[in-house]
Amino acid sequence: MGLFTRDIKTMDDLFVHTLRDIYYAENKIVQSLPEMIENATDKQLKTDLESHLDETKRHVQRLEQVFQMLGTKATSLDCPTIDGIINEAEDVTGEVADKDVLDAAIIAAGQAVEHYEITRYGSLIAWAKRLGHNNVADVLEQTLNEEKAADKKLTNIAESKVNLKAAYTNLQKD
Amino acid sequence: MGLFTRDIKTMDDLFVHTLRDIYYAENKIVQSLPEMIENATDKQLKTDLESHLDETKRHVQRLEQVFQMLGTKATSLDCPTIDGIINEAEDVTGEVADKDVLDAAIIAAGQAVEHYEITRYGSLIAWAKRLGHNNVADVLEQTLNEEKAADKKLTNIAESKVNLKAAYTNLQKD
Repeated sequence: MGLFTRDIKTMDDLFVHTLRDIYYAENKIVQSLPEMIENATDKQLKTDLESHLDETKRHVQRLEQVFQMLGTKATSLDCPTIDGIINEAEDVTGEVADKDVLDAAIIAAGQAVEHYEITRYGSLIAWAKRLGHNNVADVLEQTLNEEKAADKKLTNIAESKVNLKAAYTNLQKD
Repeated sequence: MGLFTRDIKTMDDLFVHTLRDIYYAENKIVQSLPEMIENATDKQLKTDLESHLDETKRHVQRLEQVFQMLGTKATSLDCPTIDGIINEAEDVTGEVADKDVLDAAIIAAGQAVEHYEITRYGSLIAWAKRLGHNNVADVLEQTLNEEKAADKKLTNIAESKVNLKAAYTNLQKD
């Protein structure tokens, strides 16, 4: 295993490493959401994604605040997971022929993004509390609550109308 | 956009497309879990991951049952998200110098896996119900419940002891 640098020596190191991962992810989401918004047809879905884009920009700022609170420079680490989620979203978007099915696919992609963030912020908050960074935990908790609310909104739009409209395409085939 | 094949024409197509994505993911998890188990130090964590490996093998079989119920061949589609999660887990594992911090990192990686599965099964179940595949939804729901339980178990181990042991490394530095 001599090839590895073993730079993560303490829990604080793992904490900052994971902050850099989610900092990359949030910035990538800010870049990618406009295309999802453009591709969405349902008005409510568009509006919800637009307001989540504004929220995501604030999440980036909150992470910068957290780096500052820890006396560390705000830097990114590549996050292949968010790249994977976004690539999958773009691939599926390119393959869907129907606008209602596309809305269903966009919601599923959005929820995959939200769940990734929910799990990362969940770990970060638990670690921050154990490390005695309670003020940092409070800041991250605001973002976590917004990610959970965004996920719930997507479930509601899917279940209240988008999935029904998308399922209707099955009757139209052939 | 003429480059795209637009093969997903109906909601059933999107449903099968997403089943193939999670089928790839479950198989990849079966391949990757043994290394995570080997790298884990905490006994309870090792035991929980081992029992989740058995569960994951059953999830693969359940997906094969679902493909059969739908009269479709069980085939995989590359899933860059799960590849990203596993690559990140392997990268971080290679960088962690301390065994308790490594346990905390393994738990976080495991929870990222669980959340990806939770979101995908959540979408699949909602779609299956809308599409009238209620028997399929029932089968997938068993798996979803096991993924949620696995995620909760990981939170419990982290919060009850692993994070505390890992945080202790901060006192040992220098």
